[in-house]
Amino acid sequence: MGLGQIDISLSGAGAPLGSHGRVRGNSSQIAGREAIGRRSARKCSPGAENRRRDQAEIDAAVEALNGLRLEKASIERQLQAAISGNDGSLSREAFRQAVVNTLERRLFYIPSFKIYRGVAGLYDYGPPGCAVKSNVLAFWRQHFVLEESMLEVDCPCVTPEVVLRASGHVDKFTDLMVKDEKTGTCYRADHLIKDFCNEKLQKDLSMSQEKAAELRHVLAILDDLSTEELGSKIKEYGITAPETKNPLSDPYPFNLMFQTSIGPSGLSPGYMRPETAQGIFVNFKDLYYYNGMKLPFAAAQIGQAFRNEASSLFNIAKLCSCTCLCISPRQGLLRVREFTLAEIEHFVDPENKLHPKFSEVANLEFLMFPREEQMSGHSAKRIPLGEAVSRGIVNNETLGYFIGRVYLFLTHLGIDKDRLRFRQHLANEMAHYAADCWDAEIECSYGWIECVGIADRSAYDLRAHSEKSGVPLVAQERFQEPREVEKLVINPVKKDLGLAFKGNQRMVVEALEAMNEQEALEMKATLESKGEAQFYVCTLGKNVTINKSMVTISKEIKKEHQRVFTPSVIEPSFGIGRIIFCLFEHSFYTRPSKAGDEQLNVFRFPPLVAPIKCTVFPLVQQPQYEEVAKVISQSLTTAGISHKIDITGTSIGKRYARTDELGVPFAVTVDSTSSVTIRERDSKDQVRVNVEEAASVIKEVTDGRRTWADVWSTFPHHASGSADADE
Amino acid sequence: MGLGQIDISLSGAGAPLGSHGRVRGNSSQIAGREAIGRRSARKCSPGAENRRRDQAEIDAAVEALNGLRLEKASIERQLQAAISGNDGSLSREAFRQAVVNTLERRLFYIPSFKIYRGVAGLYDYGPPGCAVKSNVLAFWRQHFVLEESMLEVDCPCVTPEVVLRASGHVDKFTDLMVKDEKTGTCYRADHLIKDFCNEKLQKDLSMSQEKAAELRHVLAILDDLSTEELGSKIKEYGITAPETKNPLSDPYPFNLMFQTSIGPSGLSPGYMRPETAQGIFVNFKDLYYYNGMKLPFAAAQIGQAFRNEASSLFNIAKLCSCTCLCISPRQGLLRVREFTLAEIEHFVDPENKLHPKFSEVANLEFLMFPREEQMSGHSAKRIPLGEAVSRGIVNNETLGYFIGRVYLFLTHLGIDKDRLRFRQHLANEMAHYAADCWDAEIECSYGWIECVGIADRSAYDLRAHSEKSGVPLVAQERFQEPREVEKLVINPVKKDLGLAFKGNQRMVVEALEAMNEQEALEMKATLESKGEAQFYVCTLGKNVTINKSMVTISKEIKKEHQRVFTPSVIEPSFGIGRIIFCLFEHSFYTRPSKAGDEQLNVFRFPPLVAPIKCTVFPLVQQPQYEEVAKVISQSLTTAGISHKIDITGTSIGKRYARTDELGVPFAVTVDSTSSVTIRERDSKDQVRVNVEEAASVIKEVTDGRRTWADVWSTFPHHASGSADADE
Repeated sequence: MGLGQIDISLSGAGAPLGSHGRVRGNSSQIAGREAIGRRSARKCSPGAENRRRDQAEIDAAVEALNGLRLEKASIERQLQAAISGNDGSLSREAFRQAVVNTLERRLFYIPSFKIYRGVAGLYDYGPPGCAVKSNVLAFWRQHFVLEESMLEVDCPCVTPEVVLRASGHVDKFTDLMVKDEKTGTCYRADHLIKDFCNEKLQKDLSMSQEKAAELRHVLAILDDLSTEELGSKIKEYGITAPETKNPLSDPYPFNLMFQTSIGPSGLSPGYMRPETAQGIFVNFKDLYYYNGMKLPFAAAQIGQAFRNEASSLFNIAKLCSCTCLCISPRQGLLRVREFTLAEIEHFVDPENKLHPKFSEVANLEFLMFPREEQMSGHSAKRIPLGEAVSRGIVNNETLGYFIGRVYLFLTHLGIDKDRLRFRQHLANEMAHYAADCWDAEIECSYGWIECVGIADRSAYDLRAHSEKSGVPLVAQERFQEPREVEKLVINPVKKDLGLAFKGNQRMVVEALEAMNEQEALEMKATLESKGEAQFYVCTLGKNVTINKSMVTISKEIKKEHQRVFTPSVIEPSFGIGRIIFCLFEHSFYTRPSKAGDEQLNVFRFPPLVAPIKCTVFPLVQQPQYEEVAKVISQSLTTAGISHKIDITGTSIGKRYARTDELGVPFAVTVDSTSSVTIRERDSKDQVRVNVEEAASVIKEVTDGRRTWADVWSTFPHHASGSADADE
Repeated sequence: MGLGQIDISLSGAGAPLGSHGRVRGNSSQIAGREAIGRRSARKCSPGAENRRRDQAEIDAAVEALNGLRLEKASIERQLQAAISGNDGSLSREAFRQAVVNTLERRLFYIPSFKIYRGVAGLYDYGPPGCAVKSNVLAFWRQHFVLEESMLEVDCPCVTPEVVLRASGHVDKFTDLMVKDEKTGTCYRADHLIKDFCNEKLQKDLSMSQEKAAELRHVLAILDDLSTEELGSKIKEYGITAPETKNPLSDPYPFNLMFQTSIGPSGLSPGYMRPETAQGIFVNFKDLYYYNGMKLPFAAAQIGQAFRNEASSLFNIAKLCSCTCLCISPRQGLLRVREFTLAEIEHFVDPENKLHPKFSEVANLEFLMFPREEQMSGHSAKRIPLGEAVSRGIVNNETLGYFIGRVYLFLTHLGIDKDRLRFRQHLANEMAHYAADCWDAEIECSYGWIECVGIADRSAYDLRAHSEKSGVPLVAQERFQEPREVEKLVINPVKKDLGLAFKGNQRMVVEALEAMNEQEALEMKATLESKGEAQFYVCTLGKNVTINKSMVTISKEIKKEHQRVFTPSVIEPSFGIGRIIFCLFEHSFYTRPSKAGDEQLNVFRFPPLVAPIKCTVFPLVQQPQYEEVAKVISQSLTTAGISHKIDITGTSIGKRYARTDELGVPFAVTVDSTSSVTIRERDSKDQVRVNVEEAASVIKEVTDGRRTWADVWSTFPHHASGSADADE
């Protein structure tokens, strides 16, 4: 393929805060203005209806014409793609265009607030898209929550600052931006440097080998550079604003959360949550009790998350010249400002990360892309999951179990297993506290897209909230027999401390008691050798002198009845919109019409995710057929099967084509009052079934209790060409 | 009952913007400060785990003790309630306390961010609450979206200002507040006046009849008073800040939307949507095309909505002295800052509001509370729906149809039909454009609560967005035969206008063309009588003089092929949290334990909404029973039935009691390897079923395909007292 390996990482909770979902290997300009159109109200008088009516007629005609034009353009592009199949990149582009055209035309999704010219990065799911999303979420609940007895919770989006300060988002969930000093236009600092290096490397053929190596090194470490280092690189390379060539400001952090204010006073800052995970962490204590104080257990949450992405990511309309992919407005469901996350927080004892059901997934074999393969320039390879865990490629069984479950989830939805891989995070991608992290990446026309992050985040989150709230978020393991353990005991001598520090005594005492083992042992040694020690008390913000009489530090043997510890958390985090977009691409294909004069679009959704499970068509407009159609429709409604009844006189072939384009897997055609045909979308095979049985057969095949193959072998085949003469 | 009729109106989209969900007949103080606790971080060093461990042990013990105390208190309260049953108000309070205690203890819901002392008005659904919510929403989809083939959409919460300016929310979605001039504490202006009047009327026995009549009049028209009028009433009555007696500021509007900013520039204001409806209206055009340009059709949306309620509504901890109900922190799920709405926008031809399926609901008979009954001091009465529509009490069939469907929806969920009524809005409650409006109100311990608003909003919303966006949101009706209609034709004479207005010509032309019929006829008359007319051009912001030569206005007979019109919209809007809270109260009861020594809590949820459908208990801890339990559990998982397996050695009676409190309708108890018992929660009846059949019987009764009565008459009865010896 013409495109290099492209990674678009998900802004998953599991991602380290610094790199939370940026486009890797990419660069784009920031326009600094929103695409939110604001027409001034054209008219003040309410009497504009007359003109609106005429306008509406014209609009309708234009709409119809545009529809035709779009279809024609789409077909042309597909043709071109088919012809120029050798050039992978063009073909990918054309393919995406064909998918996206179909998706938008059939209202799978709609740019939000379109009549006001929209807002970049916000999309509505229209009726079929909304149904697909519902189905994906229902299956997620079945596959994860129900199957694993997870504790599902539902927390608000509005979040007070204190929570997101504890989690690190207030301080660290930022992009480093630079401003055009004259126009005020904003750019991502790292993107400008990346652009500069890539362009130099590609075009400056006279560059020394030394210089080239330096630039490649900068590209490799870009994510690790500090604000100051980015600023000095921009100065060193003389990088200016791409469009105006004006000088740029120093880099400054821009927080990606939508900020708001809670209550009428304006004094309580809040944010729209950037992930759903924090709502679970702050509830750990209650959930642990709810679970009978037993580990492991998992909590889950489905909900909206919000990220105030810089707008240019959506605005620039062209692909940049480098091999990496720039985000065009067509990136659709992939990079958005509001999206649905489904997150699992599986709490385990850090000393026991075995999983009782691991054996159920151990034999799965799929594409894995371990850290070492990436570093050594190899590609992803098939590894049995059991082997990946036993060889230590995957850190532990529980992490491995979830990787396996995610694989099953995605492939059940209809994701092509050959375009799905699990990529391990490189050392510089992972947060310092993470034990291991794997992304489920799905290949689509944009390259490999991170759709699910599966991270072992150790005890980081629970510790952070324990610290900030003062509420211990810990678990207990009761011992059968009390155990003798050597324990470090710190005894501040309050009398001496009081004499020395007076009103500050309490702060010093607390700081002494809070020393960790290493700190305490160091102090003990210093006190023994020097008689006193310098000690930093953070609540006072200064060093104090501690002498021998002020504290005793010793190791004692104690009997313990239980072990108290902060659980580790393993977090699979699903970007639902991205999964759905990839599903759309993996499900889309075209096939020639019967007459061979046009290409018809089909989504091969499995019944599980199909937005509409079934259509009901009277073959011709006759009252007795319409009556049968209505009876079947009523049975389908009662059985809870979403379907569509179409009694227009349109040719049956056209009606099939229209619903193939919505991915409807089955069509019931009424061509008699005693029996009907059921047609399967992809094979176009038809069977003949009694009217009374039709709804229940449809229910069985859509519920997954029966395969089409089984239906095909049970019922008489309907000779093609009779009922669908004009297909 | 001791409490008067209390209405708590839902902040529904259908409610007029001015009164959008305020507590009617209520008053409360606004603290002006949030309850968001912010402890300073206790410690900077990460070595606090030692202390946390000890702390955790203490906390666990305290927790257990508190749990016991809560239970004891709850039982005492129930006892008290039972004893003092004559005093309705106390009994209601005690009943609510018992329900809320159970709900919080079993994590149906949790105050959000509890470890940080929470945020007033934000609640999490814990595991059973979240499951109930899921079930309610799934049934809503089945009952409305699927049954009526509605077009479900899913739009973002972040909304640009222009959309909410068009809808009126930016200007009018406000509460009028006054501030304590010294402390800055905020109060709702209308609440203070209401308090003042109520207190005077109750306590000032020396008041003249005239004065009393005046105060009652003020109470009656309070909702209609302007900012200035409220301000002058406060001055006139000498009302001061309730706690400090300080003087108060003039009333000022406080917008109830959470404001934010879209993109990095800070220049694009946005809001978190206060309702989901606007996302549907702005998509009308696309949805209409999607529906094959046919009316009527309905679009639906489920999603979060946000209202930045003044905090004191949550904070004040006491009931006020007046008969009406003050909102206490216990108001729980009723008044919140973020909540789930499910909204339907049913678009109809304003000239034809018949509904083809009205006959299906016409025979329903339930409590209705028409405007006239309210005005004349009568109470709600049973009226057959068909009669209510035919007598014109309900404005039209479509509105009536939805009232019927809402009745079926709520009663299916388990809402007591005797504590459900449909109350018509009074004239001063309704927006000027609304044709008719009914609220489904449910009686709970707080009084009658608005849970669903069902409004005929005429063409208001589509017109507002047409005006603001310039995109006509209209429908067409094609005539079979062209029709001759008399049409007003306005022909601006561009040459003369150009000479007179030069650069402004276009604005004048547009304004002339946009005149409505009445305006045009008036101008025609003026021009004919006086030769010229003054004409206000809003885009110029001034009057211009139009003379006879500049425009011709005439009526012509034209052939029309279609009618273009703005559809009316009928909007049922469901406050999901409120419905669930009422459902909790209507489902809750207590019964004595077998030993008679304690009261046990039960939620009588129908299987449809029960958070967990079934439990599986081995009677005693034996491997072969546990094996059977696991097999049944696996079958239930495969069948998609949420269940809980409990293999602890706790007595079977205790295990039943624990799950009765979660509203689990069925329990499978394994007391042999060949057959098991199935127990129904409310009757406590048990039948004996083969192991192989157990899961499918449970599936049938939970799916609603089979009643318990049918199961009871099919299978052998299990003699109570054998399997549940210690119940």
